[in-house]
Amino acid sequence: MIVGILGGGQLARMMALAGHPLGIKVIFLDPSDEACSKEVATGIQGDYTDEKQLTRLADQCDVITYEFENVPQQSVDFLSRLTRVHPGSKALATAQDRLHEKNMFQKLGIPTAQFAAIDSLEQLEQAINTIGLPAVLKTRRLGYDGKGQAVLRDPGDAKAAWQSIGQSPAILEAFVKFDREISIIATRSANGETAYYPLTENVHVDGILHTSKALSACPVQPKAEALSETLMTELNYVGVIALELFQQGDKLIANEFAPRVHNSGHWTMEGAYTGQFENHLRAVCDLPLGDSHAVGPSAMVNLVGAIPDIAAILAIPGCHLHLYDKAPRSGRKIGHINICAPDDNILSQRIEQITLLLP
Amino acid sequence: MIVGILGGGQLARMMALAGHPLGIKVIFLDPSDEACSKEVATGIQGDYTDEKQLTRLADQCDVITYEFENVPQQSVDFLSRLTRVHPGSKALATAQDRLHEKNMFQKLGIPTAQFAAIDSLEQLEQAINTIGLPAVLKTRRLGYDGKGQAVLRDPGDAKAAWQSIGQSPAILEAFVKFDREISIIATRSANGETAYYPLTENVHVDGILHTSKALSACPVQPKAEALSETLMTELNYVGVIALELFQQGDKLIANEFAPRVHNSGHWTMEGAYTGQFENHLRAVCDLPLGDSHAVGPSAMVNLVGAIPDIAAILAIPGCHLHLYDKAPRSGRKIGHINICAPDDNILSQRIEQITLLLP
Repeated sequence: MIVGILGGGQLARMMALAGHPLGIKVIFLDPSDEACSKEVATGIQGDYTDEKQLTRLADQCDVITYEFENVPQQSVDFLSRLTRVHPGSKALATAQDRLHEKNMFQKLGIPTAQFAAIDSLEQLEQAINTIGLPAVLKTRRLGYDGKGQAVLRDPGDAKAAWQSIGQSPAILEAFVKFDREISIIATRSANGETAYYPLTENVHVDGILHTSKALSACPVQPKAEALSETLMTELNYVGVIALELFQQGDKLIANEFAPRVHNSGHWTMEGAYTGQFENHLRAVCDLPLGDSHAVGPSAMVNLVGAIPDIAAILAIPGCHLHLYDKAPRSGRKIGHINICAPDDNILSQRIEQITLLLP
Repeated sequence: MIVGILGGGQLARMMALAGHPLGIKVIFLDPSDEACSKEVATGIQGDYTDEKQLTRLADQCDVITYEFENVPQQSVDFLSRLTRVHPGSKALATAQDRLHEKNMFQKLGIPTAQFAAIDSLEQLEQAINTIGLPAVLKTRRLGYDGKGQAVLRDPGDAKAAWQSIGQSPAILEAFVKFDREISIIATRSANGETAYYPLTENVHVDGILHTSKALSACPVQPKAEALSETLMTELNYVGVIALELFQQGDKLIANEFAPRVHNSGHWTMEGAYTGQFENHLRAVCDLPLGDSHAVGPSAMVNLVGAIPDIAAILAIPGCHLHLYDKAPRSGRKIGHINICAPDDNILSQRIEQITLLLP
């Protein structure tokens, strides 16, 4: 089985590494000649819109997937006429546009923050009146890791915020008072089989995910699974999906979804019986899904910008280092550490030890 | 860090896969242009005795190791003059010769079956008188997976046995009545740090390992660790070592050791906090050793000769498929399945389910 991936970054790399033991080979398409998957998979260098290279990819692969949601929708549509592409175009198109995404959540009865579409400064000023402040202005398209966002605390912030996001089509979202940010990683096959991972609690620093921790027997787990199932059914979804949520007591408010393997699911590589990368491959290859239960207490810490002292990290028991073969650069995700432990106390101690070692 | 490996088979492949997340790259030397590591590591094609290619390997690597004990000792000696090689030449030389190996066990007080050196049919006939029958005649060198061995049950078998092993220098070993075959996988770093995995119970079929099962809190675990430690200290050992043992009640009798990662340690990939492939790399790269405790009940089933129905295997929860990218051929190890389970009963059920699916 050969799986094509649009994008050759760390998510493609970890899919390729998960594929080898299963006899699944990966060919990725990436504009860069330095894609970090190059040591573990075959690469095709080319733009995502280059129909010649897309055709070459389709010719060589049994099925195609993607590692990020900003791949052009027309490329996925083009590929879909040549071969199977999972997740499908509808999931991609919805995830690419915050307004479409929020409208779909609303239509499906998935709770969201109050929001309004913004196409001009006037609309922004009106929306501030309706929604109230503080609120967040987010570009509809191409936002990630906190980019393309501006927080408004005072009506006077409107103009500067509108300019800071480049006057792009946007939405204004009410601030959500939440107890914590959580996410659910789920998988669905073409035949409708589903598998849900335990909810993950996520802590962001400067808009970038810092730490994820798997939650054992969280009371809102069934509710999160139900929301995710509703979404996957609507999208006729195939593959791994991440649904980011805010938790307020026993209430869940959807923030956004990602139609792909997700940073908040990296802990599953060693923390669950089957990791998200393997389960995504199983789903898109029409193989039975793997057991998504947690093996034990588990968490993840991202490595952003710089590599810490590797020997010191590896000296902490239960640590699994995952480097992405990327040159360190400020704000760049270059790896992560998964931590397993026999109990929650030891897990917390180990997370603390790692945090102290981060540069 | 770049690690050179003599041999590009499945053990090198699994080391390469374990290395990528750690930022450790593998370059392997193999005479074949179809070495199964080729998709996951850089290969140099050449004979193990080709000094030009050995030099090329040494020039590109920080440290060199090997994936099988039949690599020529003079190649390791040659490399040792150019760079670090782990495990060292003494371990290799001893493991290559059953007589030297047994003599070393004896010298170190590690119990063995009664044995005698055999260089002629006359010596064999004499040894039968001393040792008694049944007994096993084994070539001193180049035996593996039951090859180069003949069982003698009657004094009249001597001539045929001697001819069947090609009249090569050999040892005659008394049959050991054992309760079970077990092995201990251990790791030692250059600084003397050690890590021991839980003992593994091994079942062989037609001389080839069929199933391994990790033993939880086995009463002879401390004794096995002590034997392994004695051996590693004597050899000033660096890397993973496997010591195969026969268990008779609370007695342990050493069979042989392998100076490398070992088939009976494959379960550690998902069954232990740190797998043997990663720990071997950590040891030879002078990094701290990883936690060798079992995550939970765990076992391994080898795939020999043919690939079973993959979808049926993957439908069993807790199964981890490891294919080696090798063409199926009778008697050839082409992959294995690791099985994890929340308790021993479920583990046994899953092993049984898998066994029923084997071709």
